[in-house]
Amino acid sequence: MIRHCCGIFGVFGHRNAVELTYLGLYALQHRGQESAGIIASDGKRVTQWRGMGLVSEVFTRESLQKLKGDFAIGHVRYSTTGSSTSKNIQPFLVEYAGTSLAVAHNGNIVNAGLLRQKLEASGSIFQTTMDSELLIHLIAKSQGNFKEKVIRSLKQLQGAYSVLVMTEKQFLAGRDPHGFRPLWLGRIDGAFVVASETCAFDLIQAKPLREILPGEVVFFDARGCHSYQAFSGRKHSFCIFEHIYFARPDSNIFGGSVARVREKLGINLAREHPVPADMVIPVPDSGTYAALGYARHSGIPFEMAFVRNHYIGRTFIHPAEEIRGLEVKIKLNPVAELIQGKRIVVVEDSIVRGTTSSLRMKTLKNCGAREIHMRVSCPPLCHPCFYGIDFPTETELVASTRTVEQIRKRIGVDTLAYLSPEGMLEAMPLPSEKFCTACFTGKYPVPVRDRISKLQFENQPE
Amino acid sequence: MIRHCCGIFGVFGHRNAVELTYLGLYALQHRGQESAGIIASDGKRVTQWRGMGLVSEVFTRESLQKLKGDFAIGHVRYSTTGSSTSKNIQPFLVEYAGTSLAVAHNGNIVNAGLLRQKLEASGSIFQTTMDSELLIHLIAKSQGNFKEKVIRSLKQLQGAYSVLVMTEKQFLAGRDPHGFRPLWLGRIDGAFVVASETCAFDLIQAKPLREILPGEVVFFDARGCHSYQAFSGRKHSFCIFEHIYFARPDSNIFGGSVARVREKLGINLAREHPVPADMVIPVPDSGTYAALGYARHSGIPFEMAFVRNHYIGRTFIHPAEEIRGLEVKIKLNPVAELIQGKRIVVVEDSIVRGTTSSLRMKTLKNCGAREIHMRVSCPPLCHPCFYGIDFPTETELVASTRTVEQIRKRIGVDTLAYLSPEGMLEAMPLPSEKFCTACFTGKYPVPVRDRISKLQFENQPE
Amino acid sequence: MIRHCCGIFGVFGHRNAVELTYLGLYALQHRGQESAGIIASDGKRVTQWRGMGLVSEVFTRESLQKLKGDFAIGHVRYSTTGSSTSKNIQPFLVEYAGTSLAVAHNGNIVNAGLLRQKLEASGSIFQTTMDSELLIHLIAKSQGNFKEKVIRSLKQLQGAYSVLVMTEKQFLAGRDPHGFRPLWLGRIDGAFVVASETCAFDLIQAKPLREILPGEVVFFDARGCHSYQAFSGRKHSFCIFEHIYFARPDSNIFGGSVARVREKLGINLAREHPVPADMVIPVPDSGTYAALGYARHSGIPFEMAFVRNHYIGRTFIHPAEEIRGLEVKIKLNPVAELIQGKRIVVVEDSIVRGTTSSLRMKTLKNCGAREIHMRVSCPPLCHPCFYGIDFPTETELVASTRTVEQIRKRIGVDTLAYLSPEGMLEAMPLPSEKFCTACFTGKYPVPVRDRISKLQFENQPE
Amino acid sequence: MIRHCCGIFGVFGHRNAVELTYLGLYALQHRGQESAGIIASDGKRVTQWRGMGLVSEVFTRESLQKLKGDFAIGHVRYSTTGSSTSKNIQPFLVEYAGTSLAVAHNGNIVNAGLLRQKLEASGSIFQTTMDSELLIHLIAKSQGNFKEKVIRSLKQLQGAYSVLVMTEKQFLAGRDPHGFRPLWLGRIDGAFVVASETCAFDLIQAKPLREILPGEVVFFDARGCHSYQAFSGRKHSFCIFEHIYFARPDSNIFGGSVARVREKLGINLAREHPVPADMVIPVPDSGTYAALGYARHSGIPFEMAFVRNHYIGRTFIHPAEEIRGLEVKIKLNPVAELIQGKRIVVVEDSIVRGTTSSLRMKTLKNCGAREIHMRVSCPPLCHPCFYGIDFPTETELVASTRTVEQIRKRIGVDTLAYLSPEGMLEAMPLPSEKFCTACFTGKYPVPVRDRISKLQFENQPE
Repeated sequence: MIRHCCGIFGVFGHRNAVELTYLGLYALQHRGQESAGIIASDGKRVTQWRGMGLVSEVFTRESLQKLKGDFAIGHVRYSTTGSSTSKNIQPFLVEYAGTSLAVAHNGNIVNAGLLRQKLEASGSIFQTTMDSELLIHLIAKSQGNFKEKVIRSLKQLQGAYSVLVMTEKQFLAGRDPHGFRPLWLGRIDGAFVVASETCAFDLIQAKPLREILPGEVVFFDARGCHSYQAFSGRKHSFCIFEHIYFARPDSNIFGGSVARVREKLGINLAREHPVPADMVIPVPDSGTYAALGYARHSGIPFEMAFVRNHYIGRTFIHPAEEIRGLEVKIKLNPVAELIQGKRIVVVEDSIVRGTTSSLRMKTLKNCGAREIHMRVSCPPLCHPCFYGIDFPTETELVASTRTVEQIRKRIGVDTLAYLSPEGMLEAMPLPSEKFCTACFTGKYPVPVRDRISKLQFENQPE
Repeated sequence: MIRHCCGIFGVFGHRNAVELTYLGLYALQHRGQESAGIIASDGKRVTQWRGMGLVSEVFTRESLQKLKGDFAIGHVRYSTTGSSTSKNIQPFLVEYAGTSLAVAHNGNIVNAGLLRQKLEASGSIFQTTMDSELLIHLIAKSQGNFKEKVIRSLKQLQGAYSVLVMTEKQFLAGRDPHGFRPLWLGRIDGAFVVASETCAFDLIQAKPLREILPGEVVFFDARGCHSYQAFSGRKHSFCIFEHIYFARPDSNIFGGSVARVREKLGINLAREHPVPADMVIPVPDSGTYAALGYARHSGIPFEMAFVRNHYIGRTFIHPAEEIRGLEVKIKLNPVAELIQGKRIVVVEDSIVRGTTSSLRMKTLKNCGAREIHMRVSCPPLCHPCFYGIDFPTETELVASTRTVEQIRKRIGVDTLAYLSPEGMLEAMPLPSEKFCTACFTGKYPVPVRDRISKLQFENQPE
Repeated sequence: MIRHCCGIFGVFGHRNAVELTYLGLYALQHRGQESAGIIASDGKRVTQWRGMGLVSEVFTRESLQKLKGDFAIGHVRYSTTGSSTSKNIQPFLVEYAGTSLAVAHNGNIVNAGLLRQKLEASGSIFQTTMDSELLIHLIAKSQGNFKEKVIRSLKQLQGAYSVLVMTEKQFLAGRDPHGFRPLWLGRIDGAFVVASETCAFDLIQAKPLREILPGEVVFFDARGCHSYQAFSGRKHSFCIFEHIYFARPDSNIFGGSVARVREKLGINLAREHPVPADMVIPVPDSGTYAALGYARHSGIPFEMAFVRNHYIGRTFIHPAEEIRGLEVKIKLNPVAELIQGKRIVVVEDSIVRGTTSSLRMKTLKNCGAREIHMRVSCPPLCHPCFYGIDFPTETELVASTRTVEQIRKRIGVDTLAYLSPEGMLEAMPLPSEKFCTACFTGKYPVPVRDRISKLQFENQPE
Repeated sequence: MIRHCCGIFGVFGHRNAVELTYLGLYALQHRGQESAGIIASDGKRVTQWRGMGLVSEVFTRESLQKLKGDFAIGHVRYSTTGSSTSKNIQPFLVEYAGTSLAVAHNGNIVNAGLLRQKLEASGSIFQTTMDSELLIHLIAKSQGNFKEKVIRSLKQLQGAYSVLVMTEKQFLAGRDPHGFRPLWLGRIDGAFVVASETCAFDLIQAKPLREILPGEVVFFDARGCHSYQAFSGRKHSFCIFEHIYFARPDSNIFGGSVARVREKLGINLAREHPVPADMVIPVPDSGTYAALGYARHSGIPFEMAFVRNHYIGRTFIHPAEEIRGLEVKIKLNPVAELIQGKRIVVVEDSIVRGTTSSLRMKTLKNCGAREIHMRVSCPPLCHPCFYGIDFPTETELVASTRTVEQIRKRIGVDTLAYLSPEGMLEAMPLPSEKFCTACFTGKYPVPVRDRISKLQFENQPE
């Protein structure tokens, strides 16, 4: 049961399906940087290329040319420290009874441990700890045609999934009945495309049609595209954190523009928690739009007081001797000239452990900031996510056991204020009951009975 | 159904189990150069390291240090062009229902296709095309304790296997009831070792105890070592080609020294097919001992007229323009000074396609050899092997459709003679009925009903 | 004669000299991404590590540990297509007459070709096409002690250089008499540090002391630090383009804060070229501060309408089929929701060839921008730089042969305006006569008699 | 002053010059395994490819295709531990005053240190510690046309060199006046080829013409091939160790077949030092021909009692715990069945440090050899070589300070005997005064005044 936020992309019926998938993954790279993969089919034969690293590292012209066919699915996987092995790269492909079966999955299945135990008891052998392999085993044991097998298998899953399933000849996109993760349908040159976010359509100039609905299964084959509503009567639970932090600002998801939602969060934040100051600065890039909203509503000048180093590698070597604030300054260095003697509102999208914020604020103070007022564009994060975002456990979340005043002291700022739940929900483009806010409220829309750690399956170094 | 000749090695109960396995594989490298792997257990946790290439390329000090435990199994795999993917590296390891299960296999299962179809029909999903994975699926579906599960699974297999099976706490070595492939038991510092050939014991100074018997299963765990005769009444069918070509000359297998057997083959060859000549030369290194036998019996001086280049890499680049005999001279260059004007007996261990022999003999003639008399230390190879050696198909075997005289003309020598089946069997250290001679006679000791090509399972580029 | 803008960093007298240099180069990475190198000395022995790629790729913990000593120099080199070979990595090190001699150079020597011809005529053999090697040959042929040799050699050079020279025991930092490139002196824990920009001091918490003066040579050895004014009476010619584009916004160079200068450029731009509009947007990241200045002066709201993809690799694979605007959208994608129906002021730091700007503006129009008003925070770039920035030749500079109106049409915007030379100079923190503005005016402060192409020296593939 | 035995190869005037050079180096790989390189010219432009490792590792089809032209020189370099850096790969190429100049060198210059000091004093800067670079600097400082410059430079060198020099349009092969190292001239398809040994001609089916004479310089250009005798009246000093050990048995050098010479050495050894025994065995592969000679003369049967592992990698990992004789058994394992209870004559080509021999003989004894009689096919090695073979220093040579009886005890054999100097010289194909026997006698034909260690130039890790 690995928690991960990932990105998925698929094309059905385009002669450049592989290249479009490559570009789609490029645009979705922010959803996962650990590994990437593409699986393609020409209707007869399935080819795959997968590897650890960024899309730009995994794929070469040669590897793309090895992938053949007019439909393809792709996946980028989020880096979760400790569990990253090359075996867990998606999409996951097996050869089963003479056909190929491939799955790309974004989300997290909360009853994965129990389903796996049941399957193993009847002799199924797992290669990985991925939910996508679980789905493949369920499909292999199900009855009926391809579409029926997949739907029967999805019905056994509890939790979050936006999923693409493929054989040599068929292609299917599905979304869990709660709709935790986004999934969009689009068109390009008469072909269908599916993507986690619309920014992937922008890049290839595909036209966004609509979100795939919660509980909807869209099936593509040589005869066309058919949609099924596989579930009914479930409450929608769109992940509100996609709008706050995870999605790209140039995407539209869950009914609205991410950039606009974030500016609205900033406006509401300014309305709820005003403070006299000389400038509003974001922690780039994720806090930028909320900071713009805050500045606009408050009338306080917006400034870019942190400079981002665009050449941070994966393997920064810490010096033997401690240098103050090094680990945060290497990424974002404050412009001392702008800060000195000023009263500053710093806008952050969220605070998780609080460690980085604390270090970051110290670098501002060292530059001579007179006052620092931290404003956070969502309420305190108090509960882990079981639906596909890799949050720390409760004990690691700074807000789960501390008051705002305690956090303020810990981070070392003059004032600290979080946006209220109401202010957050008001900024959303859909009614508030449509969103999952479990990480703020602890009210989990799907019960999490099965907290078996993924670690017990993971003692195989590769 | 991949045909491969491989080498396996295991240690049970030695604190340097991993290092000994590394050395054992080093000594068995002639049995497979495509890939290598070691799986170790400390009684609680299984660790593995596997890779494409030679033992010296796959393992580094760092990788060996990651392998922990006092028992271990290892495997070297033969390079069979076309089907070599990193997925097929052995030993094969799965995590299944909370335990680790690993298999290293040498041989070939002739009913693998049928067993696989049966398993897939009940929902089993295969990751590879290897017989070792097949065995693992059978074990997962079997009832009883570890030992019983393995024996029940082995009983479903038809064909050739010398096999090592391991969990976190248990270790098992088994050999098929016909005993096609060799498997030896030895001791070192109180621990047990198992190896395809005794040359692996020599290197680490282990003491050879005895061959594991055909149909024997030896089981090791914390309480000691127990042997079971799992099968009874099957005819022994030791692979005679191990003595002729495959095994290392410094090994003892199937009752005797390989070097001595080969010298005896040469003596019998000289007895059956004498010819007046000035010198006897081997095609090194495999023909050396038979040539020494021939020279000794005939009294004709032995000479080393081919010089071996020890630095042949994997990737020799052929020039655009054809140079006569280049592909054979790059490996073995004749010493013109020794050959010119001489009548030469060339001793080869065997002739497969005949192409290389033909080119090789041309290089001798270009050096001015007066007469060339080719002598082969086994009978004509006419039939493919289904028990674990990667021979070409019948149509590619030069002797399957041609008389000796036709082969002689094709190879371009003055005389050509093969050792008789009787002369071959007489040289063996065990009675002739103990050996499988199917590649010479076509009499297959285990029926091969199931010739499903491995290719149908192999359309997944990695 | 390679034109390159590079970054240099040096430490004298600190036990963590190597680690500090590594961090310094990390902070200066924007000045060169092609290669990186560090050379260190412990007073007796010089060690080096150099490689192609980013600082984070070239250095590992192991490689840093191989570098020993309490003084060190480092270099990052700019990627100039076509001439990038591993031989040209700096710092350049030779063993000469029993001592080590190393040079790191930022700038460009305009009489390099003539000096090289002269040296070759007397038997000197060059390994590279780098100015740093030229300096080493001059030092080897000069008379006197180390300091005298270096000063005598520098006096033969014409053009731009900020340079670090090192032996086992000595260390020297020098700047050409015109001071084209920046070079700062700082202190940390009693040791001296030298860097192209102050942002490198920020990261390691070194204290900036002052800029090394034009024509100044600072010499460090066991007895301390001595400064010499090696030249007199030359006009200062600080590169104005460092302020406009090249330097990091959090640096202080040539008398002032880069971020503040850029905001001032934006303010002057708004003053000179106002236009009614709904929003001001930068082309990030280089246009951000000028856009903030423009927005602040004009009162038009600032918006972040381009989203930057932070995961652009080196090797983006272009699809076979052309997709409109792909090459620019992959880096910066416009947020359609913000743009549609709006009148937009786009602020760019400069326009070189105009191709990218043109493509970028098309992506804005495709998002439905009503009007686009492009504002450039410097005058038209009409002339190549011979002092260390890799500009294209005159014919490739879009402004060298076109009127502003012609450029406007080419780029396809509603209005286009450049900042005036006066507006640019007014924003600078020093009097206008201190700056080199040759790329705008064609008035080169050091004559460029010697335009021998570097290509004639570069026919050696490696 | 690096001592190295290397191999060189060149082609002038063949459209497949690069491919032939690749093959020539392949055949000369025994002369050097550390690095390889080829430099080619099409008359206008010089291209190079060089790398660490075997010929098969350094060159790919792609790299060969980058090399263009109808003449080419190549080099393989011997692995001398400690001084192997990528900078020292040959052939060495510089761009000098508008032309390319490349040198490939086999041998060792004894006055290299003095020449280098002189050149550095006048400002020359060296990149490497190679004699080939020294020659290039001398050429750069010499007067006259290409041929005159090279001859004038060669005249300043003292010691051993077989050398190839090349520019875009010219090609020259030279040999020192003593002729220490071999160098052959041959023809193929009307073109000229030059190689260290004739085995390189065999592979490509070039016709050997003759050895290039000591002191001869052969010059090739568009107008043809001209020979000059650049020196006169020097005593010939052919390296006798080439015949004993270094050259390939299928080569002809210094007047005769290497294989035949070695058989003759074995015959003389049997004549001088007979012993009753059951078998004669070589230490393969270098002792094989002498062992055949010994067996033939003595009438004792020849046997192959050591089995060579052909898959020894570069990086054998020694286990933590000592296993007896492991480091020698991993390469050559004795066949116990052949040895047990036997009286054995072991023929070695030479004994250097004695360590390996000692370990090797222990493995024989552990196999139960009754008596071991070691016979060495040359006299005791007592003195280092300064002419291009990487022998240890005197103190490391086991025979320099020990009697034969002391060595016998150290190695642990029943008897030990060396071939006499007379027996050695008698086996040679040319009169004894033509050979350098300094390593046996200490009589150095060229005085070695200049023993400056190469180490003083080598403190640059790369």
